[in-house]
Amino acid sequence: MSEKDFESLEKILETYVPEAERREVRRVLFGKELKKLDLPQSAIDAAVEQDFDLKGYVFESSPEQLRLPRTVRVGLIQNKIVLPTDAPVLEQIIALHKRVGEMVEVAAMCGVNIVCFQEAWTMPFAFCTREREPWTEFAESAEDGLTTRFCIQLAKKYNMVVVSPILERDEIHGGTLWNTAVVVSNNGNVLGKSRKNHIPRVGDFNESTYYMEGNTGHPVFQTHVNGAEIIFNPSATVGLLSEPMWPIEARNAAIANHCFTCAINRVGTEYFKNEFTSGDGKKAHNDFGHFYGSSYVAAPDGSRSPGLSRTRDGLLVAEMDLNLNRQVADKWNFKMTGRYEMYAEELKKAVQHDFKPNIVKE
Amino acid sequence: MSEKDFESLEKILETYVPEAERREVRRVLFGKELKKLDLPQSAIDAAVEQDFDLKGYVFESSPEQLRLPRTVRVGLIQNKIVLPTDAPVLEQIIALHKRVGEMVEVAAMCGVNIVCFQEAWTMPFAFCTREREPWTEFAESAEDGLTTRFCIQLAKKYNMVVVSPILERDEIHGGTLWNTAVVVSNNGNVLGKSRKNHIPRVGDFNESTYYMEGNTGHPVFQTHVNGAEIIFNPSATVGLLSEPMWPIEARNAAIANHCFTCAINRVGTEYFKNEFTSGDGKKAHNDFGHFYGSSYVAAPDGSRSPGLSRTRDGLLVAEMDLNLNRQVADKWNFKMTGRYEMYAEELKKAVQHDFKPNIVKE
Repeated sequence: MSEKDFESLEKILETYVPEAERREVRRVLFGKELKKLDLPQSAIDAAVEQDFDLKGYVFESSPEQLRLPRTVRVGLIQNKIVLPTDAPVLEQIIALHKRVGEMVEVAAMCGVNIVCFQEAWTMPFAFCTREREPWTEFAESAEDGLTTRFCIQLAKKYNMVVVSPILERDEIHGGTLWNTAVVVSNNGNVLGKSRKNHIPRVGDFNESTYYMEGNTGHPVFQTHVNGAEIIFNPSATVGLLSEPMWPIEARNAAIANHCFTCAINRVGTEYFKNEFTSGDGKKAHNDFGHFYGSSYVAAPDGSRSPGLSRTRDGLLVAEMDLNLNRQVADKWNFKMTGRYEMYAEELKKAVQHDFKPNIVKE
Repeated sequence: MSEKDFESLEKILETYVPEAERREVRRVLFGKELKKLDLPQSAIDAAVEQDFDLKGYVFESSPEQLRLPRTVRVGLIQNKIVLPTDAPVLEQIIALHKRVGEMVEVAAMCGVNIVCFQEAWTMPFAFCTREREPWTEFAESAEDGLTTRFCIQLAKKYNMVVVSPILERDEIHGGTLWNTAVVVSNNGNVLGKSRKNHIPRVGDFNESTYYMEGNTGHPVFQTHVNGAEIIFNPSATVGLLSEPMWPIEARNAAIANHCFTCAINRVGTEYFKNEFTSGDGKKAHNDFGHFYGSSYVAAPDGSRSPGLSRTRDGLLVAEMDLNLNRQVADKWNFKMTGRYEMYAEELKKAVQHDFKPNIVKE
């Protein structure tokens, strides 16, 4: 069993651990048991036909007297690249539009209200190569590039909010590049964009070679279905670097902030024509490692959905009642009891260049 | 299989999942495989004799040219209360001193340099009762109370730093109460104390009925073995409330801050003579639920030790080379790449009563 082979943690548990024990394992690992979402047969058939993993779960909440349930269905799409990385740029983009467009159609069959794609979804995650050409040619205008126009069509056709993370070319500022999630409303308007703030400088990612730290702050997009209650985290990360961190970080954010988080990772291994080194003393090679998919949704109550496949394209549909956010907030009260004023004050001091830490010595 | 019965996630995986698959499951759940620590036979025998779970692991790092390894062994102790909760206060305290003192002796056999006990370790976690008497009688001076004097003896005898989380009685400020971790150096000096900052107001904890938010900030205690590289989190939390969050939160903190975290939870079910209600519409009862132990150590590279037992007293010995902290920091660079100035600025704005959030609408 190699890192690239195994389908998912969930599958291994299901195969080997007896039901009574598995129930306890699932409770500890995933939180409260989620109801499976009843997906239409047409969607199930389409997923088999088109060879992708399709899963659906429901995050329920308690009935309230003064508010109706505020039910939202989100769709998380993870996918391999379609063409080899040395195919012509436009063909690669069109092929990804086609593949993901078909998966969005299945999401529509499943009643999805908001769909989010993986980070830099229109291209291979080529930053490992440190080459400029042809990768910067994948960059597009967030407002009216080819991909945004494609997403506007999808949004209108399916009455669906689309979160589309692309490599952005910012012509207004001298053609600079950003790692940007474009938010298209269900009416097909570009609602705005959020540029990645914290650019990792780790391993073969080399993202900071291509684009800078985002300057859009932390905007909240209020669509027809939600306020600031769902955080989408489109990602691209590989097994040997980060897999044990994957189940931790997005889920911690959901718990700490009383909200839903959707973590989406690309899937598959991407080969590049020119070999590159990794600054680790090892030989040059042609791939970045295995993107392990495993996209999932985490809820404010500490529960989470099982992950999508580690090896296959997938669509995860999660129905959630956003009322759960306030219900959990009213239970745990982090927003009231957390020492945010103290944290703000201490963090403000700590970022000063002449900060003196509070160290107690004997 | 009930919530109180099952011994641990690790045990279930070991029992049912074949080795090849288990290796992958462990990698995803726990990160890189840890070497087992070679513990002396006398310690292993003592743990069997005294009926507690004893585990030992090593977090290794790479050799460096200019620094020697900075190897530290920490000990995490989780334990049930010893006497019934209606035994005389002093007898309960003395019985806990005896039990934990014996476990510290085993920690000493294992070469532990820093030991940390569970939250409010000298008493039952009685705050669920909302009664004052006799529970406030368990409060002691952090500087020279019975328990601190006991810890000073242990520290000197075993040349060990002792982190002793107690209910503190602060006579200087009118006898107020705090939830306080007292740090005793290996020379037996009270190095200082850290009062719990964020007091949960959730479920049956009712902690805020007894003590206030801490006013000691976030001091760092530089002992003979470390600077600010290990965070101890002595806790007391029950299964149905928080168990799925337990593997997430401390581990996320280790990853996000490039340091080691030690999460310690008490174990067992504590019965109180007077029944109490839980504000959940259910009938009055005499226990708070099952404290699920499962104490563990998390490392900055995303790895973690297996947990101690969910049902038995336990000592977890972890040997760690603190050089790993800077090695991981140099790999991920969060302290440089994180947008801390932006976060400080935004958090400062966000805590204002008249804060206007940045919401984008159609």
